Amino acid sequence: MLGNTFGRAFRLTTAGEAFGTALVGVVEGVPAGIALSEADLQVDLDRRKPGQSEIATPRVESDRVRILSGTLDGYTTGAPIGLVIDNEWATSERIAAYVNEKDVIKPGHATYTYFAKFGPRRDWIADGRANGRETAMRVAAGGIAKRLLAERGVEIVAYTRALGGIRCPDLPYDAIRTNAESPPIRCPDPEAAKQMLDRALEAKTSGDSIGGIVEAVAHGAPVGWGEPVFDKLDANLARALMSIGSVKGIEVGAGFAVAEMCGSENNDAPVLDRGTVRFETNHAGGILGGISTGEDIILRVAIKPTPTIGLEQRTVDMVAKAPASFRCRTATDPTIVPRMVPIVEAMIALVLIDHAMLAEAQDHRKEP
Amino acid sequence: MLGNTFGRAFRLTTAGEAFGTALVGVVEGVPAGIALSEADLQVDLDRRKPGQSEIATPRVESDRVRILSGTLDGYTTGAPIGLVIDNEWATSERIAAYVNEKDVIKPGHATYTYFAKFGPRRDWIADGRANGRETAMRVAAGGIAKRLLAERGVEIVAYTRALGGIRCPDLPYDAIRTNAESPPIRCPDPEAAKQMLDRALEAKTSGDSIGGIVEAVAHGAPVGWGEPVFDKLDANLARALMSIGSVKGIEVGAGFAVAEMCGSENNDAPVLDRGTVRFETNHAGGILGGISTGEDIILRVAIKPTPTIGLEQRTVDMVAKAPASFRCRTATDPTIVPRMVPIVEAMIALVLIDHAMLAEAQDHRKEP
Amino acid sequence: MLGNTFGRAFRLTTAGEAFGTALVGVVEGVPAGIALSEADLQVDLDRRKPGQSEIATPRVESDRVRILSGTLDGYTTGAPIGLVIDNEWATSERIAAYVNEKDVIKPGHATYTYFAKFGPRRDWIADGRANGRETAMRVAAGGIAKRLLAERGVEIVAYTRALGGIRCPDLPYDAIRTNAESPPIRCPDPEAAKQMLDRALEAKTSGDSIGGIVEAVAHGAPVGWGEPVFDKLDANLARALMSIGSVKGIEVGAGFAVAEMCGSENNDAPVLDRGTVRFETNHAGGILGGISTGEDIILRVAIKPTPTIGLEQRTVDMVAKAPASFRCRTATDPTIVPRMVPIVEAMIALVLIDHAMLAEAQDHRKEP
Amino acid sequence: MLGNTFGRAFRLTTAGEAFGTALVGVVEGVPAGIALSEADLQVDLDRRKPGQSEIATPRVESDRVRILSGTLDGYTTGAPIGLVIDNEWATSERIAAYVNEKDVIKPGHATYTYFAKFGPRRDWIADGRANGRETAMRVAAGGIAKRLLAERGVEIVAYTRALGGIRCPDLPYDAIRTNAESPPIRCPDPEAAKQMLDRALEAKTSGDSIGGIVEAVAHGAPVGWGEPVFDKLDANLARALMSIGSVKGIEVGAGFAVAEMCGSENNDAPVLDRGTVRFETNHAGGILGGISTGEDIILRVAIKPTPTIGLEQRTVDMVAKAPASFRCRTATDPTIVPRMVPIVEAMIALVLIDHAMLAEAQDHRKEP
Repeated sequence: MLGNTFGRAFRLTTAGEAFGTALVGVVEGVPAGIALSEADLQVDLDRRKPGQSEIATPRVESDRVRILSGTLDGYTTGAPIGLVIDNEWATSERIAAYVNEKDVIKPGHATYTYFAKFGPRRDWIADGRANGRETAMRVAAGGIAKRLLAERGVEIVAYTRALGGIRCPDLPYDAIRTNAESPPIRCPDPEAAKQMLDRALEAKTSGDSIGGIVEAVAHGAPVGWGEPVFDKLDANLARALMSIGSVKGIEVGAGFAVAEMCGSENNDAPVLDRGTVRFETNHAGGILGGISTGEDIILRVAIKPTPTIGLEQRTVDMVAKAPASFRCRTATDPTIVPRMVPIVEAMIALVLIDHAMLAEAQDHRKEP
Repeated sequence: MLGNTFGRAFRLTTAGEAFGTALVGVVEGVPAGIALSEADLQVDLDRRKPGQSEIATPRVESDRVRILSGTLDGYTTGAPIGLVIDNEWATSERIAAYVNEKDVIKPGHATYTYFAKFGPRRDWIADGRANGRETAMRVAAGGIAKRLLAERGVEIVAYTRALGGIRCPDLPYDAIRTNAESPPIRCPDPEAAKQMLDRALEAKTSGDSIGGIVEAVAHGAPVGWGEPVFDKLDANLARALMSIGSVKGIEVGAGFAVAEMCGSENNDAPVLDRGTVRFETNHAGGILGGISTGEDIILRVAIKPTPTIGLEQRTVDMVAKAPASFRCRTATDPTIVPRMVPIVEAMIALVLIDHAMLAEAQDHRKEP
Repeated sequence: MLGNTFGRAFRLTTAGEAFGTALVGVVEGVPAGIALSEADLQVDLDRRKPGQSEIATPRVESDRVRILSGTLDGYTTGAPIGLVIDNEWATSERIAAYVNEKDVIKPGHATYTYFAKFGPRRDWIADGRANGRETAMRVAAGGIAKRLLAERGVEIVAYTRALGGIRCPDLPYDAIRTNAESPPIRCPDPEAAKQMLDRALEAKTSGDSIGGIVEAVAHGAPVGWGEPVFDKLDANLARALMSIGSVKGIEVGAGFAVAEMCGSENNDAPVLDRGTVRFETNHAGGILGGISTGEDIILRVAIKPTPTIGLEQRTVDMVAKAPASFRCRTATDPTIVPRMVPIVEAMIALVLIDHAMLAEAQDHRKEP
Repeated sequence: MLGNTFGRAFRLTTAGEAFGTALVGVVEGVPAGIALSEADLQVDLDRRKPGQSEIATPRVESDRVRILSGTLDGYTTGAPIGLVIDNEWATSERIAAYVNEKDVIKPGHATYTYFAKFGPRRDWIADGRANGRETAMRVAAGGIAKRLLAERGVEIVAYTRALGGIRCPDLPYDAIRTNAESPPIRCPDPEAAKQMLDRALEAKTSGDSIGGIVEAVAHGAPVGWGEPVFDKLDANLARALMSIGSVKGIEVGAGFAVAEMCGSENNDAPVLDRGTVRFETNHAGGILGGISTGEDIILRVAIKPTPTIGLEQRTVDMVAKAPASFRCRTATDPTIVPRMVPIVEAMIALVLIDHAMLAEAQDHRKEP
């Protein structure tokens, strides 16, 4: 696997599986002299961690991150930051529970693709590296990125925009920001949130699962971030978000709606606001030509329903080369959408800080 | 600009603007001993080139690609392939026509973001590097990638799935493959194509433009391409497609529809087909856990209406810091969707061959 | 610090300082299905570890490496391998001993350059990341590389070629291979080794230190490794070796002697050996045009005398901006040359396996 | 060949062979707003170009570089700079002259390694990409790097330090700078230069060739450039210099002499000079811990004698698999050392500007 490093100026490398000893991360590019403690990173890890509510997986983890290098006396030193998160849930007893399903393709999971790519020596316990557990390290690193973005006046807020077919109405940024975190759904509209929860519990009862949409707004980014033509800001955001398991669609600004719009309708009109160029509308979602415009960066990701369900499913035993059936025997997780919120934020943060640093590093001469 | 290189095992580096002397490209990673001529690359360049129909820009270019290095006697040598495409349309007289609009933000374009990032010394002629002209070099390199994919039994077919609100119905792969290229719309359904053309001509008459959706199918890719966790196949496809100007949304397989599906409905059931694992449905779009499944890889991109329109629009003069108005004085391009088809194919080809080579390079031991 | 990742197809990322909690490493690109245990990596770590003899630093470390991810039941899984080596010596009491010399430039060390680059928040304890301790993780990763090279019939043997002005005579490969490891000097010639030890003990008595030369031979590499023009095999070997602290010179094959040779003398004559091309001499050191020739790859590195000495030295207090003096109060290390042997081997192994994989990944067509 | 890109913040990608149509280059990372013309780059190209004197190859090239993109009205625009240098000497008649020696290994050249790696479809004309001609594009790009370094007060001067066993004595930087360029030897000491020329002409007469040493001094670099632990400044300089064909050894500062020095002798004593830290001696060659110290950066490279000689040499026909003999039939080039001077400077310039930009990009907080 040659894809465990992300970013150029701010770079994350990760290792670790669902039931390995621990997750490991190295973060490069953090300047010296930034106040940083384990508690700072724990905030978002606690938002992502399992077992938070009746609609989340019952796996119990404290998800405690330890900083092994790169800081001294509470400040970064400029050296790479080594991070470890132990897998407390990964006991040999629990691992044993997976042995029987070792060779059976779990529908909707990466069982078959990992088997075909890596062979029988792959890590088959709860899909090993393909399990969503690896995202904990993304969230830890995202915490460092968010800190550096906050210094630049940028904040990222994500929330559950749709769940099981129920949509949150359009809300102004301030309303989103204030209410996005409300548990357990993370939808800022109380009425929609209530319906979403009912829908999730209904799915849980029936042993099924539901998908949804997470929307994210990055507020405060200046004009000028993004490196055309292949490292456009939206291109790297798309890669980052699509690299999260379960994401099947991405929209920037108006997204797929642009396919039915006219140019005269979709073009955002530039206007002057106290000498600064702003845009009257934001169909562009804050990005033009692959470079941030200074408006809010608006992204939406479509998240598929959790593939692990309690219903019996037809499948294949890869080793016996025979039909088989599979049914998740442990308690099911009716939706992962609310837990995706901090992961989406983390990936956006990793992209934005990387592009911020790349942009700041280039000494373009602005005088005529 | 630090984003002009794409790929790891098969790598493209490009330079060039709309009205510069020429586009320049270097392709690395092509094995020695592959038959390759300029004519091979010209095929797709001719599909992309301007001036093909009444609904395309009137810019006239032969888009003739020249191979300056990396081949000998009609075969690749293993050395990097240097490519040049001259900008024949770029005369000083035509450049002069852009001077008056130099400081005015063209709505929906990258004028302002380039000005803010690069300063007054940016290339302002038809938006310079931000102009879609740079994609000609992507298409040339994509031709090399397609050749190497064909050797592996992979073919990529893209087509206009929707235009101005009119959608092409679901068609089987063979029907798409046979009829996708029909001019000028590149929609394989004749009835839909006719309505789309009417819609485009209507937009042209009114001086406006329309957006649409391009769908692409990569057929024949084996199971095993993709490098988790950050270089998943879908992640790099998303980056590649979002790096094309005007793309605002991306879907893999069922795409945004997953947000309203249940797990029991969305999970594709594995089945055995003469000893091989296949899937009964393909909501996954041929990718699970970031790795190809062996099923068709299905992608859709949302393309915004051409921002250059004939209608008068309110805007801002960046230098005078004053309100202004802008109207495209040359003949307009009511839609770019059909011309995007070969560009979408090229970017998918660049990603697939890169991942094919990365996957083939890894010597995983498949015996137990 | 943006330079903690090494390699492309086989990639190592490291973090960790002399007195941090631990060293952290992530190794990517290891195929699935390779037998690998912590004990395998311990072999070379034990060769590098401090406290082995009367001429090495008295720091005591078990240098126990732990594999946190990427293996299952004793085999690699294809997932990235997470490694940790705890810093057992790094107690708060020992750290306290460094406080007084915090602001004083230690001559020959990176104290001043780290202070100037990273500012006062740098890790100042025993020079933090600049301390040779980080090489332990290189050696651990080198152990994985060596295992993959052994599968390809390649072995790397390094030894002390010169120490304190005493040189080991020219020896045939077999003699080097058999006797290189003899403690404590790692010089395969017993007579030279004895003189070298005397010279080192003499330096120790006087509170001074001595430099030397390590030579390495990589035996068994096939023709064809190396990626011109910038990633030539010798270019990447040079980078790898020069990235080890204390290395000030590098030679390939005849090295600096070529400056005084004629072409007719330096050119190695190709000859046929049972149908295979070999070379009568090996002034090229096994590399021509940046690509391995199939002959032994021969490298030499010049290692400066340990900068930490027991003698009083004039220096500068960077904070007080005043002249100061510095004298190492702890027991000194009269030479690091013998401990460099496994580090040199590890870096060569990392480069060779990376280039082996890159070369094997390229499907050049060898038929006419 | 996957090694045609160099650098991270300032990045060069090249293509082109000795007898292809042209050399192609793309330079990324150049800020917008820098005055840049083709004439600026021509200066160093003229210093490198063949046919300058009686001791250089008789190939005649104007080596005219053309800028195809990335500039407008004499200034850079921030877009990648596309460069082309035509191969005027590469006529079909001259190519024909190489056909007979197609399958014969030219001793000291890359003939065999390219044949073995790339197969019979490699470019065999004058060794194709392995020919030193590709360095012309390095020199062109180096010209851009030098311009950006000059803005930072850095200048690089290289010269012939030794040729055919004759050494230039130690000279102060000002004497080197003033006299380094004296033709045709580029040795700043007139007496040594005279002896070197005699030695070269003597080699020419006898049909043989001689090697030498180029020394380079980079003057004016501030403290702080270099990215430990793998991208140390000296590590990347070593890679850059070793990537030049014919280089077999590299020294930084005291180089191999450190192997015979004591620590008390080799350590450079820090001193205060008007409040700034300087070093009394410069055995370190301006780099400590992989980071520039602010002192002159001093490098030496050993260059082997031109492998192309007029004497008959025993060799092998690779296709016939039979012994053969080879003798260069065209006029020979008794030494390439003086022509290496601008190439060495260019490679150092590429590394220094890349590290300058990386260092400047990192926002380390210097207040306590």
